[in-house]
Amino acid sequence: MADENRATETDDLLDRVDAAVEAGDRAALDAALEPMHPADIADLIERLTPGDRRAFLTLYADGIDGDVLSEIDESIREEVLEQLPRAVLDDAVREMDSDDVVDLVEDLDDAERALILAALDAGDRAAVQQSLAYPEYSAGRLMQSEVVTAPEHWTVARAIQFLRAEEWLPEQFYHIVLVDPRRHPVGYVTLGRLLASRSDATLRELAEDSFRTISAFAEEAEVAYVFNQYHLISAPVVDRDDRLVGVITIDDAMQVLDEEHEEDILRLAGVGDESSISDSVMQTVRQRVPWLATNIVTALAAASVIAFFEDAIAQLVALAVLMPIVASMGGNAGTQTLTVAVRGLATRDLSRANALRVVRREVIVGLTNGVFFGVIMAAITWVWFRDPGLAAVIGSAMIINLLVAALAGILIPLGLNKLGADPALASGTFVTMMTDVIGFLAFLGLATAVLL
Amino acid sequence: MADENRATETDDLLDRVDAAVEAGDRAALDAALEPMHPADIADLIERLTPGDRRAFLTLYADGIDGDVLSEIDESIREEVLEQLPRAVLDDAVREMDSDDVVDLVEDLDDAERALILAALDAGDRAAVQQSLAYPEYSAGRLMQSEVVTAPEHWTVARAIQFLRAEEWLPEQFYHIVLVDPRRHPVGYVTLGRLLASRSDATLRELAEDSFRTISAFAEEAEVAYVFNQYHLISAPVVDRDDRLVGVITIDDAMQVLDEEHEEDILRLAGVGDESSISDSVMQTVRQRVPWLATNIVTALAAASVIAFFEDAIAQLVALAVLMPIVASMGGNAGTQTLTVAVRGLATRDLSRANALRVVRREVIVGLTNGVFFGVIMAAITWVWFRDPGLAAVIGSAMIINLLVAALAGILIPLGLNKLGADPALASGTFVTMMTDVIGFLAFLGLATAVLL
Repeated sequence: MADENRATETDDLLDRVDAAVEAGDRAALDAALEPMHPADIADLIERLTPGDRRAFLTLYADGIDGDVLSEIDESIREEVLEQLPRAVLDDAVREMDSDDVVDLVEDLDDAERALILAALDAGDRAAVQQSLAYPEYSAGRLMQSEVVTAPEHWTVARAIQFLRAEEWLPEQFYHIVLVDPRRHPVGYVTLGRLLASRSDATLRELAEDSFRTISAFAEEAEVAYVFNQYHLISAPVVDRDDRLVGVITIDDAMQVLDEEHEEDILRLAGVGDESSISDSVMQTVRQRVPWLATNIVTALAAASVIAFFEDAIAQLVALAVLMPIVASMGGNAGTQTLTVAVRGLATRDLSRANALRVVRREVIVGLTNGVFFGVIMAAITWVWFRDPGLAAVIGSAMIINLLVAALAGILIPLGLNKLGADPALASGTFVTMMTDVIGFLAFLGLATAVLL
Repeated sequence: MADENRATETDDLLDRVDAAVEAGDRAALDAALEPMHPADIADLIERLTPGDRRAFLTLYADGIDGDVLSEIDESIREEVLEQLPRAVLDDAVREMDSDDVVDLVEDLDDAERALILAALDAGDRAAVQQSLAYPEYSAGRLMQSEVVTAPEHWTVARAIQFLRAEEWLPEQFYHIVLVDPRRHPVGYVTLGRLLASRSDATLRELAEDSFRTISAFAEEAEVAYVFNQYHLISAPVVDRDDRLVGVITIDDAMQVLDEEHEEDILRLAGVGDESSISDSVMQTVRQRVPWLATNIVTALAAASVIAFFEDAIAQLVALAVLMPIVASMGGNAGTQTLTVAVRGLATRDLSRANALRVVRREVIVGLTNGVFFGVIMAAITWVWFRDPGLAAVIGSAMIINLLVAALAGILIPLGLNKLGADPALASGTFVTMMTDVIGFLAFLGLATAVLL
């Protein structure tokens, strides 16, 4: 119900926005957008067709501030940036936190990047450039450089006095990072705990157990894992010398977690991992063709196996009727195992420590399911074709293929992971190629040996 | 590299824990576990085999505190609870936040639940029972009832003074919720902003723009969406009368986001959505059999289509060789579209507002890919079988099936969503059944009409 209502509201809103844009009525557009959160305005812009988007931006350009700009999806960001007047863009960029500016400019070419960074004052620009010096998808790119620090010998009273007197404090902060004289972080204190404690307690006494630093070179997937695993709200980021260079807050980590999920799910399905609902036809085709091309090659491999048994099929056409069932069951069982393995690797529930045990479990599950569905398929085949030999053949092929599915489904992602590749990438194609080839080979081979 | 190191460390640690448990050496076990975070201890317990787990818990029972207990995965929670001595369990439960106790007891039967709640004092027990009165998977179950509130006319100085003097404050809090005299939340102030502001400013002036309340009856998926979309750190939860009943913090929302994603990815693969790497063989078989059983039915439907064309295959065995390629390409293309659609629905990027446009795009993409791969397969077939008629047939069948794949891949999840069902559930089976049946039908039907 709530969803329905929201959907209707969104549609009403879209209609009002469309009407205002068409009429060139800026006042009506402002009225429609005024109550909206910047994230929702950005979503609305993403949902427009490219033509409507251009009309929208022409009318509303100076309404695009830093909050909206930092929410715009990568897939249409360049398009939006190009259409914003220089002055609007400069104002928007100046409003943004350093980590949002990094996110905005990191995919631009040098000239465009320089143009945008020129809007910043020297200090902010230096912060952004420091972040950009770290590798893509690293903690250094995620962090914001604005950090509140204090020495650990300070008392609560002094820390509160300092914060109360300080002119400059970040928009959002939840901790004070405790640093030694060389700016190595040694702990942190939550603001809640600070406020709740005796005035004469030292910050050292209030430091949280959960304290841990993150290397600026850590991969962002690692950052998301650490935040999720240890329920962190923010974490100090350090350089190679363990010196404090910034801080990552949980809202950024949550966004990374969401993006990592998206990547896993899209890669498993063989869709380019940057695809989004607002992509154009050509972008979509470009993302999907490579995987379909890989699939046509693996499908041809499976077809070659069948071609090898053309004579057998010519003698007993029932083989052609039944063979896709063996392959399909293998493909499904393999995908099940594969998905559990990919997910286990992503959450680190699957590691070298228990890999052997999981492989053993999958093999037993594969055998159990193989025997179960093998018997069922044998019974169906017996009833359908009245041929006990054929029934025995399909039952045996099913057992073999579900066993192969289990092995391929667990060993291929473990192997890719071992090699340092993303196990979600291409695993699906490899696994179904295995189950297709082995499925046809086992069924048609056994049939040739036993029946003909 | 970091991952490798960590993996090795984890394995070393597991070896030390194993050795200590085997030797019954509690001191060595304490030494191994002492530096570990409770979340990591919980993971370690999950990774043990059931037998090792029993030995571990016998030796380490009184080491299990509230922090470890609240991190233990649902799949082994009951097993662990049964093995803990009463006194240890009571102490652990008393240490936990109300939302963690709710999470711990919500799946237990009434008797077990009462036993655990008996450990709490009356006030805490009432808070847990209030949460449990809300539906499963609702915001009411996620929230903690400990909230710091203040009237909005207070000045900064007064609020700070209040917090400094207050005896009781929650472990973690990041905002003060502003309430009116009837306890309706009207805004919130971050602690950082409070500390950074003039002493005579009122809390009303400092309230955040991003303020929004969450209904205790909202689904937890909705909670995760709202936190992620609006970058919330915490949000007040209200009852039907808009009265404040608790607060949800982002770390809980992040965990829900992670679980929702797990559900999507596992459902898309046809694996029961509660499966985990530590499940036993029998649990795993039970989760996977229903989907394989569904698949055998759909595979039989596809086989029946083939059986209908037995005579055609007997005349031209090449048909049997090529038909799986048409089906396989359709299955892959359908899964691509399906995954993008399921993901789009989950992130709300796909809604009624743009559904028509996305359907149109998918149809054009399906046709484009169909023509592209149809031409390629026609060329390959011509070279392979030297039969221009067969080449034309497979090319046409490919176009038809990739078009059907696109339609099925987008319309089936949209339809399930419209009906209020999870689009990730069962979509995969429906889509591949469509592409298998239509793939075989189009290819064999065209071949019969044109070639024979």
